[in-house]
Formats: sequence, C-alpha cells, structure tokens
Amino acid sequence: MIQRLAILGVGLIGGSLARALKQAGACQEIAAWGRHEASLQKAQELGVVDRYSTSMAEVVEGADFIVLGIPVGSMVPVLEELKPLLGEKTILTDVGSTKGSVVEAVSEVFGNIPRRFVPGHPIAGTEKSGVEASFAELYEQRRIILTPLDETDPQATAEVRWMWEQCGALVEEMSVQHHDEVLAATSHLPHMLAFTLVDTLAGLKDHDDIFRFAAGGFRDFTRIASSNPQMWHDICLNNKDALLQMIGHFQHELDVLSGYIEHYEGEKLLQVFERAKAARDSYCNNNS
Amino acid sequence: MIQRLAILGVGLIGGSLARALKQAGACQEIAAWGRHEASLQKAQELGVVDRYSTSMAEVVEGADFIVLGIPVGSMVPVLEELKPLLGEKTILTDVGSTKGSVVEAVSEVFGNIPRRFVPGHPIAGTEKSGVEASFAELYEQRRIILTPLDETDPQATAEVRWMWEQCGALVEEMSVQHHDEVLAATSHLPHMLAFTLVDTLAGLKDHDDIFRFAAGGFRDFTRIASSNPQMWHDICLNNKDALLQMIGHFQHELDVLSGYIEHYEGEKLLQVFERAKAARDSYCNNNS
Repeated sequence: MIQRLAILGVGLIGGSLARALKQAGACQEIAAWGRHEASLQKAQELGVVDRYSTSMAEVVEGADFIVLGIPVGSMVPVLEELKPLLGEKTILTDVGSTKGSVVEAVSEVFGNIPRRFVPGHPIAGTEKSGVEASFAELYEQRRIILTPLDETDPQATAEVRWMWEQCGALVEEMSVQHHDEVLAATSHLPHMLAFTLVDTLAGLKDHDDIFRFAAGGFRDFTRIASSNPQMWHDICLNNKDALLQMIGHFQHELDVLSGYIEHYEGEKLLQVFERAKAARDSYCNNNS
Repeated sequence: MIQRLAILGVGLIGGSLARALKQAGACQEIAAWGRHEASLQKAQELGVVDRYSTSMAEVVEGADFIVLGIPVGSMVPVLEELKPLLGEKTILTDVGSTKGSVVEAVSEVFGNIPRRFVPGHPIAGTEKSGVEASFAELYEQRRIILTPLDETDPQATAEVRWMWEQCGALVEEMSVQHHDEVLAATSHLPHMLAFTLVDTLAGLKDHDDIFRFAAGGFRDFTRIASSNPQMWHDICLNNKDALLQMIGHFQHELDVLSGYIEHYEGEKLLQVFERAKAARDSYCNNNS
C-alpha cells in the first residue's frame, strides 16, 4: 500500500495512473503538483487526486512515492526543483517516452543516479491529452517497461512494479538503450510518418478535396497525427539517434519499394506486401 | 428497379453491393460470375447472390446491369471475355481502385468507350477480403466516385448513381485523372507507408521484441498493412505515375523533418506537428 503518492504533472498518463491506483485501493492519498493551477483544480474536481498545490514542496513532503508525469522535455527544470526536496527513502519513477534522455537528465541534475530512482514507461495512451482524457482502465493488460540501472535498488524496482501491477499492467524490464530502440521503431517512427503524411497532404493545393475522400483506413492510419505536438517535439529531440536511424531504415525500404513500382517489378512488390501482411496479422492477431 | 444484376467477381466489394441492393429491395435477381467456383458457391450459400455460374455467358445474358467486381489487374482478360456478350442497352460499371487504367483497358478491349460504361469507385472497404467479409452496411454514408467520360450516356451515369444511392452511399463525380491523384494521396500512399513500415520492422533482427511492445496506436496505424497483397500489387502498377509522385512528395517532407530532428530545430518540428494535428482534427472531426 502506498501511503502518499505525489504526481508531478497530471495529464492523461499521470491522471490515469491516479485513477487506477484509487480504484484498486492501492494508495491512501494522492497529491498533485503542476505549473498550471487550472488543470490541477480540474484533477481534484474530477476526483483524480485528493489535493494539489503549485508548490512542489507541499506536494512531495512526506510522499513515499513520486511519479514524474511530465513530458520528457521538462525533466531538467522539474528535477532541479525536486532535488532538494527528495527524501532518501522516497521512490522516484517517471513515465517518460524516452529513457536515455531521462536517465541523463537525472544524472546531470543529481550528479549521480539516486538509488531509489526507477526509470519507467507505460506503453499506453491515446491521441488525447490532459487529465480530462484520463481513465482508470488505460493500463489494463498494457505493457510497462522499467529500465532499472546498475545503481537502482532492486527493492525500489519491485515496488514500482507492484504499483503498475495494481493498475492491471504487464511489467517488463529491459535496458535503457533497448527501450529507446524498440520505441523508436514501434512508436516514434510511426508517429513521424503519420504527422508527415497529414502535413504533406495538407500542403497540396487541392487538400480540401483530398481529405474529403479519405476513407476509414486513412482515419485509422492518421489517428496518431492528432497526438500532442509538444510531447512529440520533446520525444524527437530526446531520442534523436535511435529515431533518425529508424527513419533511415524506413526511407531506404520506401526507396526500394518505389523502384519496384517504377520498374513494374510486380513479383517483388507482392513479396513485400505478403511479408508485411503476414507479420501484421501474426503480431496483431488480425482482429485488432 | 434493376431486373437482373450480373456481378463479375464477388468479393468484399461486390458481395457488399449485392447485400445492400437486396436489403433495399432495389434488385430482382443477382447473378454472379467468377473464376473460383468455391467462392461463388459460398456467395450463394450466404444468400448474397441468387445464382452463379463460372460461364460468363450464363450470368450476363439478359442482365440490365453488369458490375465488374474484380481487381484492376484482372480487367483486360475479363473484359475480353465480356466483349462479345455485352448487350447494347446493358449498363456496365466497375468498382476498381484506379480509374485511368480501367478506362484504358476498356478502350483497348472494345476499341472505343461503350456509351453505357460508367467508371466507378466506392471509397469503402476494410482490410478483410472475400465474400465472407461482405456486409450490407459497407456503403452507408460512404462516398462513391463516378468518373463518366465524354462518351458516357448521362442516363447510364444517372442509373449507376441511383444504384449506389440505394446502398446509402454519397455519389460524386470527378475526372479520371483527379480521381487517381486524390486516391494516390489518401489511400495508395498510406497503404505503401503501412506496408513498408511493417516490412521494415519485420526485417530488424529483434523484431519479435519490437512487435511485442507495439501499442494501440501501432495497431491502428498498421491495420491497412493487413489488406490484400494481390489487390495492392494491382493498384500500384495501375496508378504508377500518381503514386510515385505522391511518394516523392512524402519522401521530401520526411527528409525535411529528419533534418529538423538532426539539427535540433525544435520550433520547426513543433510547427509540422501542429499543422498536421490541426489538419487531422479538422478533417476527421477529432473523434474518429
């Protein structure tokens, strides 16, 4: 049981965590800190948190668990404010979409890795953002990746694992670098493609007509282009190397495909489409 | 009221049309022709069509409406078989995903454009294929594009429009070339991106791990990569120029985006993401 959970930044991710822990009865009190009083107030009105303050000290004092629910681009200033307030026994974890940059920020601000800091990332979300979009079931059967470091106290890792399991999540551990590569492939690259596609079409001269004839497949395909621009700005700049490498792989394969189309290499086109369909059907169970 | 409708090729598209017309009471008899007896038999068992034959003559004889429900890559041989059987008053339409190549095939086989031929394309479908996947509601509130030619009898166009309106569809007319450009942008390019993405990831050495951590956004984004490979093979080769042009536009924009990431041009990244989100939210109503 968590006695007092402090959530720094209550949006979709932090808000859904708070809701899930409350629903599971896994937490006695949840306090929220953030820079914008309006959204903190909203979180309290919605019953997502018990209390809030724009003073970080008031929120983290006496907390046994602190969750950084902020975008990865805001880590350094928030950690700097947190540093003098962090109790030695307090568990600190985050929900950032990139792990290398978060670990770097923690290391930079603290001068070392606090033993009870456990980097984490829930592989869940929607294209919506803000506490209004949060819901208790967001993490059910979703994977949470923890990337504990050599310095990390295994007991702290176990407690963070417990916290997420209370939300119905499936917790896995991997290295920071592997996390950033896997996420570049499955999340960051697809988002770049969706944003680029929609922006490319929006820039065409007859774009009104073009979007009018978009069918269901296009809506599904571009849903992730409705995601929060600031968050994706942060992710791009915080997972630059892995992301650029994946974009490079993709561009190469798209060049190859264009060559097949240009030279009417039907057999090879068919092979690409068949491989892709087989992989997608197999990994996504065909019904999802 | 259609007296006798002949559907040449009863898959998802032709099967759904047959179901919708039956449900609307818009058609007295529906006969199906195809090369594979098993799927024709299935169509009859499911009540999608009234009768079938693998002899085209038996199916088209006495038909007042003929719908080509075949992939665009099969047009020429099917049209050659149809040519001697086509009655002068019979309306002929198709459901092909590309229009320039279909018009070319008709022109090549018939030596001219039959006056009662109305090129058409329903902007509807799912990633499934086959008559088993067909359903009567597929066309409700979906757009159907007709691309009548100078030679086309306006009365034939009006009758094809009527047929689709019986299915609850919204019928629009545009030129063949505009159709092929619009579809290259909203459908063919996104499918190429989804196929290429999945194939790129499937080719990575740790692909099992990579797909395991794919979240809901990835499933939505890649749903269209489960589409029929043969159909997409045909579409690529039948809308080559417009598709290659769109891929070129996209590649250019992706290069620009990569440059922003590489050089930490955060403001510019944010602008791309904001423009894309605004366009997507506005055209897709944010909820879909």
